[in-house]
Amino acid sequence: MSGPSDREIILYLCLPVSFKLTILGSSSATPTSERFFSAQILDNGHQYFLIDCAEGTQIQMRRLKIRFQKVNHILISHLHGDHFFGLPGLLTTFHLLGRDQVLHLYAPAALQSVLEQLFTISATRLVYPLEFHAVDPLVQAVIYEDKHLTIESIPLEHRIPTSGFLFREKAGLRKISKQAIEGLDIPYTEFSKLQHGHDLELPDGIVLKNSQVTLDPQPPLSYAYCSDTAYHEPLADMVKGVDHLFHEATFLEEDVSLAREKYHSTARDAALIAKKAEVKHLWLGHFSARYKTLEMMLEEACPVFENTRLAEEGNTYLLTS
Amino acid sequence: MSGPSDREIILYLCLPVSFKLTILGSSSATPTSERFFSAQILDNGHQYFLIDCAEGTQIQMRRLKIRFQKVNHILISHLHGDHFFGLPGLLTTFHLLGRDQVLHLYAPAALQSVLEQLFTISATRLVYPLEFHAVDPLVQAVIYEDKHLTIESIPLEHRIPTSGFLFREKAGLRKISKQAIEGLDIPYTEFSKLQHGHDLELPDGIVLKNSQVTLDPQPPLSYAYCSDTAYHEPLADMVKGVDHLFHEATFLEEDVSLAREKYHSTARDAALIAKKAEVKHLWLGHFSARYKTLEMMLEEACPVFENTRLAEEGNTYLLTS
Repeated sequence: MSGPSDREIILYLCLPVSFKLTILGSSSATPTSERFFSAQILDNGHQYFLIDCAEGTQIQMRRLKIRFQKVNHILISHLHGDHFFGLPGLLTTFHLLGRDQVLHLYAPAALQSVLEQLFTISATRLVYPLEFHAVDPLVQAVIYEDKHLTIESIPLEHRIPTSGFLFREKAGLRKISKQAIEGLDIPYTEFSKLQHGHDLELPDGIVLKNSQVTLDPQPPLSYAYCSDTAYHEPLADMVKGVDHLFHEATFLEEDVSLAREKYHSTARDAALIAKKAEVKHLWLGHFSARYKTLEMMLEEACPVFENTRLAEEGNTYLLTS
Repeated sequence: MSGPSDREIILYLCLPVSFKLTILGSSSATPTSERFFSAQILDNGHQYFLIDCAEGTQIQMRRLKIRFQKVNHILISHLHGDHFFGLPGLLTTFHLLGRDQVLHLYAPAALQSVLEQLFTISATRLVYPLEFHAVDPLVQAVIYEDKHLTIESIPLEHRIPTSGFLFREKAGLRKISKQAIEGLDIPYTEFSKLQHGHDLELPDGIVLKNSQVTLDPQPPLSYAYCSDTAYHEPLADMVKGVDHLFHEATFLEEDVSLAREKYHSTARDAALIAKKAEVKHLWLGHFSARYKTLEMMLEEACPVFENTRLAEEGNTYLLTS
């Protein structure tokens, strides 16, 4: 029997998987000349998830060379315009690009009929299937599941009903150690058994213990997107222990009264939630246009939660556990 | 009686007025990484008129430092998304910026209720008055008039009902010659009579002939915005003799079959209309994303109509007669 090709070995060796988070925009409410409205793409190595779709999001997708045909899921956190006004345009662009794969849209129910009317008045009949999944922003619930991942909607505290999204990777397969199997005559058709944790009987009768040739899988990753929201302590329980928490930091503490009035958060609020929830990494975003530079966000958050970074637009971050 | 200040003299000398045309975007249907969707601002020296409002238009307005509070009139040519999907966002931004002046919106009637629903689901109640003026795209009619200008909607030929817009300046006042009045004892309170073409009796009894001290006013300017449209010969009569014609040139002749299919025009089509209408200047825009460079547009149009230019985004053009 011929051995596996190098490519097949690599596939079975389960190269480390992480999430890639691309920040398409980081501005709240009104865009600035330097920042687009907030939106992100999360790539879990299998799917692209577009989180919120503001005016200009598709323009940024082009600029950052995001492959449009890889976006099969769009999640809309709430129906303030700075989170979904780009959706009609993007859905139309998919149509003009000749998309045929189904697109899944997760959003508050009220959006569906308005989208339909927009398409009616613009005489647009989409050439691809658009499946609308109504999300109830008042409950925590699994809204998506595949063999790699679940996504839960989590209720936030904002002026209108708003969902955060919690992405949880499922436990992965064991990793085969290339060094450990070298010289052993293991048919590659048996690799799957090893990945699933089984021992293996070799052709010569020797039983290979699974632990001799495999490594623990990477711990599954989790990422929570929490925007827009006021400081909301119950959120800390919902995102307890996540690897990466994105939390809006529209304001600084010097503008905390505005934050309270508008049901937004300060950088300090975000850090307090991260600390209470014992997350590993905090990412800040959705910045008010009043702040021309953002270092003060970190100066405010880091003393409370050290492992804080800015989610800056145009960047793609590798999220690992 | 003290004489007029220098500033008052300048005001009465009627500095030459022209239109300023700022191209916010020049792309059709799908934006490119270099070009935004088509939209323009026409400044007639008294008002700013925003013509079409696509996704990204407000972003370009910020980048080009257009003063948002000066935009009091928005005209929407038709209800394809690449001409109006930026409108909800821009109207919301005016609201967030604390606008209080009335905003006039001229658009096909069907847009009004969809806008209202978008504002309902996004819990937006505009703080400023928004006056909606329904435009019938099937008729040629004056849709706006003030003491300086009229705007007519003109029916174009597209897949859905579409209006072009024809801006006509009204005849101006006569211009007082600073040289000619030097040394004469003309009270500045009498300048208005001279501007309106009257002779003047000086304090010493001498009658000053109007033609001795004034110059003919500048001929009134006209600008026609024609997008989107197929090649449509009746258009030439409607824009006969205009100073500046903006005509879409989505395609080149090599793609004429697409132009016919989509009810768009080629650069050559635009030039033929300009020639037939005996306009003075032709501006091309609304370019398909398939063309990475635009020189070929001019190479195609200029042999038919020499005085052709590209309306390139980011530029402000001074339109004179």
